Amino acid sequence: MKTINLASKLAQFSTHWDPHVVADYNDNDVMVVKFQGEFPFHLHEDTDDFFLVLEGEMVMDLEDAQHPVGAGELFIVPRGVTHRPRAAAECKVLLIEPKGVPNTGNPATAAPKPRI
Amino acid sequence: MKTINLASKLAQFSTHWDPHVVADYNDNDVMVVKFQGEFPFHLHEDTDDFFLVLEGEMVMDLEDAQHPVGAGELFIVPRGVTHRPRAAAECKVLLIEPKGVPNTGNPATAAPKPRI
Repeated sequence: MKTINLASKLAQFSTHWDPHVVADYNDNDVMVVKFQGEFPFHLHEDTDDFFLVLEGEMVMDLEDAQHPVGAGELFIVPRGVTHRPRAAAECKVLLIEPKGVPNTGNPATAAPKPRI
Repeated sequence: MKTINLASKLAQFSTHWDPHVVADYNDNDVMVVKFQGEFPFHLHEDTDDFFLVLEGEMVMDLEDAQHPVGAGELFIVPRGVTHRPRAAAECKVLLIEPKGVPNTGNPATAAPKPRI
């Protein structure tokens, strides 16, 4: 039980689209992640997807809309909604998902989530 | 489904210890709140308690420790742990709790949570 400095955690890795777990909240992973470029379009059938931009700017692409999300802004993708985060330049994000959720929506192609 | 600017939401009220719901994440309320002074010691039997400081500094008092938490820092109080947030000067916080959780741990003394 301690204070978690998100910038310090983000300084521990440089990879993109590679969420790192920094804390647990009930049955959720609280993660930090760096976005740059485009992630594949995907959806999560069983959970909402929580994104809070800490630094930089991303765009949340939906099938019929594009939502810019900047530092200090939150975007929650409801379950079942196809989405794609993208970022022209590196963007640092706090991500919350239930434990065990594959980041691509597909367990076969999902990255593991290290803990830092 | 839209981008939520937390500073804009925080500008809509000036009361302290008065969480306002800004979004839903699965069965949780995502809230912004302003702390100043001391909240009562309390605990939540059934849930962890998620605090992310957006601006300013708070201290999370536990029964046997004091944890400063500044901007860009996270503190998660595990379920069942007695805690008291306090802030010498106004501190703006993102708070996540399951829907229906009384902020004091006690329904009889809990404040309602308006949505903005």
